[in-house]
Amino acid sequence: MTESGNIFGNIFANIPPSVPVELFETLARTGDVRIERILSHGQATPEGEWYDQGQDEWVLVLAGSAGLLFEGEPEPRRLMAGDYLMIPARRRHRVAWTDADDLTIWLAVHTGC
Amino acid sequence: MTESGNIFGNIFANIPPSVPVELFETLARTGDVRIERILSHGQATPEGEWYDQGQDEWVLVLAGSAGLLFEGEPEPRRLMAGDYLMIPARRRHRVAWTDADDLTIWLAVHTGC
Repeated sequence: MTESGNIFGNIFANIPPSVPVELFETLARTGDVRIERILSHGQATPEGEWYDQGQDEWVLVLAGSAGLLFEGEPEPRRLMAGDYLMIPARRRHRVAWTDADDLTIWLAVHTGC
Repeated sequence: MTESGNIFGNIFANIPPSVPVELFETLARTGDVRIERILSHGQATPEGEWYDQGQDEWVLVLAGSAGLLFEGEPEPRRLMAGDYLMIPARRRHRVAWTDADDLTIWLAVHTGC
């Protein structure tokens, strides 16, 4: 059964006029899965910081663009609208950049929540 | 860890020139979660048939449109691009219609797989 979040909505709706900090919104939650919308507008992971998660995360960019750097790779992977990527557990990564001119809309599916 | 599926791709890529039957493609799998792309072009659940699933399913329409009917509701919910919906476990439902003129691209997140 659905534990929280709206049962329905539109992922392109309720966009604030400006996004000075990244916005995270849980759209749905079921079992140990959490589905999240992330809005970015030019933000990046602070220099020298890495995400290091205990569970897999699947991301899909729906609008805008972003650069996702995995530790050990020479440069960020460029994600455009429609691009998806599995970030395996314990794979250190950072958001090197997000589009400075357009809003980037991410869908993230978190497991083991 | 990722168990199967490509680690990355584009959800708007690899669209066949025609979709005479609905196409289901697993994009990613992790733990008991399976993320699937569904392509529809005018198909519907056969008359009188219902889906009745043991686990929640979350769907997002990325292109096209569809009508999703929950048993007991007077008419289908119209899903357009960006619309998402949680289909709770054991909630009988059917796809009443999908866009006959344009391809409908669904993202489905299945749990308990």
